[in-house]
Amino acid sequence: MPDEKIWANSGDSHLVEPDDLFATMLPPALAERMPRSVKADDGRTETVYVDGQSFQRRIPRSVTSLTDIDGNTLDDERAPGANDVNLRLQDLDQEGVWAELVYPSIGIWMSSIRDPELLAAGCRAINDWAFEFQRRSMRHVPTATIPLLTVESAVAEVERAADIGFKAAYLSVAPPTDEDWNDPMWEPLWSACAEAGLVIGYHVGTEPHDASTFHGAYYRGAGGALLNYVETTYGGQRAATKMIATGVFDRHPALKVIVSEGGATWGPFVADRLDEGYRQHASAVRPQLARLPSQYLYENVYASFQHDRSAVAANWAMGWRNVCWGSDYPHLEGTFGHTQKTLHELFDDVDAETRRRVTVGAFEELFPHVPPAPGSDG
Amino acid sequence: MPDEKIWANSGDSHLVEPDDLFATMLPPALAERMPRSVKADDGRTETVYVDGQSFQRRIPRSVTSLTDIDGNTLDDERAPGANDVNLRLQDLDQEGVWAELVYPSIGIWMSSIRDPELLAAGCRAINDWAFEFQRRSMRHVPTATIPLLTVESAVAEVERAADIGFKAAYLSVAPPTDEDWNDPMWEPLWSACAEAGLVIGYHVGTEPHDASTFHGAYYRGAGGALLNYVETTYGGQRAATKMIATGVFDRHPALKVIVSEGGATWGPFVADRLDEGYRQHASAVRPQLARLPSQYLYENVYASFQHDRSAVAANWAMGWRNVCWGSDYPHLEGTFGHTQKTLHELFDDVDAETRRRVTVGAFEELFPHVPPAPGSDG
Repeated sequence: MPDEKIWANSGDSHLVEPDDLFATMLPPALAERMPRSVKADDGRTETVYVDGQSFQRRIPRSVTSLTDIDGNTLDDERAPGANDVNLRLQDLDQEGVWAELVYPSIGIWMSSIRDPELLAAGCRAINDWAFEFQRRSMRHVPTATIPLLTVESAVAEVERAADIGFKAAYLSVAPPTDEDWNDPMWEPLWSACAEAGLVIGYHVGTEPHDASTFHGAYYRGAGGALLNYVETTYGGQRAATKMIATGVFDRHPALKVIVSEGGATWGPFVADRLDEGYRQHASAVRPQLARLPSQYLYENVYASFQHDRSAVAANWAMGWRNVCWGSDYPHLEGTFGHTQKTLHELFDDVDAETRRRVTVGAFEELFPHVPPAPGSDG
Repeated sequence: MPDEKIWANSGDSHLVEPDDLFATMLPPALAERMPRSVKADDGRTETVYVDGQSFQRRIPRSVTSLTDIDGNTLDDERAPGANDVNLRLQDLDQEGVWAELVYPSIGIWMSSIRDPELLAAGCRAINDWAFEFQRRSMRHVPTATIPLLTVESAVAEVERAADIGFKAAYLSVAPPTDEDWNDPMWEPLWSACAEAGLVIGYHVGTEPHDASTFHGAYYRGAGGALLNYVETTYGGQRAATKMIATGVFDRHPALKVIVSEGGATWGPFVADRLDEGYRQHASAVRPQLARLPSQYLYENVYASFQHDRSAVAANWAMGWRNVCWGSDYPHLEGTFGHTQKTLHELFDDVDAETRRRVTVGAFEELFPHVPPAPGSDG
């Protein structure tokens, strides 16, 4: 029904922390070392100060303007509810977004912090602030930002966040340590998330980077914007692959992971790549797994996409039931301003079961505490 | 029909150059600087000497043994026709492989050569030898190895190869120069391939590497084999993306590219990623393209896979008609010894049009000079 309002849960949304977050929540000696941004006069670049380091970057256009699906800049400078807990639900209602998994914004700079105590204090401050959204409405599912400089501090914040009531933990797609996600050192973190019942949320584009580097700019020159946009999905695929390949889901069968904003069509693809490698290079594979790697990807791993028609087909044609739609609100790559147009383009010609599963069902499986979306059977 | 023999063209096969190739075809002063391998006594590692450099590597198990689809080692140490022009067609007939796009083996080490003249001479020697397979039977479509240290030498070999009768040019997924494939410096190469009517074949895993590094080992430790196996596909996706994003197919609409051995399900996925980036980051995209990036991927780019069921669905469910099957003969990841089992698993429950297109049709579109496969309507 083309005129019907389609309600969808979003596997990928963002909070924008207030400028004075750390000043109000941390002692001055810690607050002044936390990430803060000073905008240039032209409004196009900013200098970010983090723990004695600083770096310049172009301000993401998501913060300065929004475009519609044809690339036209919208009049409104930003989504009204981007960092306003009162206006946010109005935006969601207008767009037809019901519940949302919500990532921090400033958290992506946390990887420049080298002091584990400072990082842990900063994460606690962000999380205490972010949880207010969940207190206001269970439609918001904030992710707890986890400090990753030591596994002990990571486990401690996972446990604290679960006690507060968080249902999801945000991890960067690669940790800021020498030990990558496939290192056995991280086992206590997987164990803590599994025991606490926290879904792990990886958001693409969160590779740790030194404060001196320009984030996400793998390519410059001709084609650079498109090349960088494609490149960013690989980090999310790698994070999921590292967990599968090292047997994390053998040890924690109930643990669930979502990779947000990297598209979703990669799921069946990487599953097939893993199975081919697992069978054809069997003698080199360590550890051996209890099942084929594809089975973990199909059961334990979820992913969110915004506009990709092929992601819907990854569900109905390739059988990956863990495809979630996502709005990426309020970011530029997202659907703010054209959510209903996008949802109708994606789902008007798709069977009801696929539509229900991708718009709300997969999300409800991850977060059963969330109230059912209007008109859904959930 | 489960008992029927399925004939398929292969978008990904390999020649294995004889040990004395360069000695017989080049002056001694050049021959001794070309890649050669000395096996260790245990038969598991080899030292490769290239142009004054040397590096050790584990011998790919494809060269020492073959496994069936369940990972069991086959009795025969290698495919009988791997480097025997007489036995090769027997192997193909037995497996049900009709025509094949054939890549060099030693060519992947060529990136360690730093002398453009030496590299060009080596490529000419490999190509003159490889073309004998096409002379023997048009079922073999050898790729001409192109020297990539300078664009002039690349263009010269493209033109020489086309004159000889080659129908395809092998390029590494990234060039050995400071200028990547998205650099305008390569325009004469794209132009030469388009004018000569050569299909560009990128083979995954061919990133240039220094002789001192262990090729393809991005990850070590737990899960390393699977992580490296997944990682290798990204290079092929990048190569295609660089051409699309820089407008190569606007300038050369008839130019065709195949990415071999990286799977094929990535095609519709990367197409959707590119379109999202192109629309949502429109103001940052340079150059602007005449059409949406997905359209070039759907028309100009092809890809081969071996076992991936999702690759077949990428054709019938996502509309990417350029999915090609590939045997990867005689390599470990390939289907030698179980080709018919694999083809039946992939195609027994698929409609006739999809089956014909993926097994033979897409390949015939790239290489219309190849005789039709038995039982096909081509």
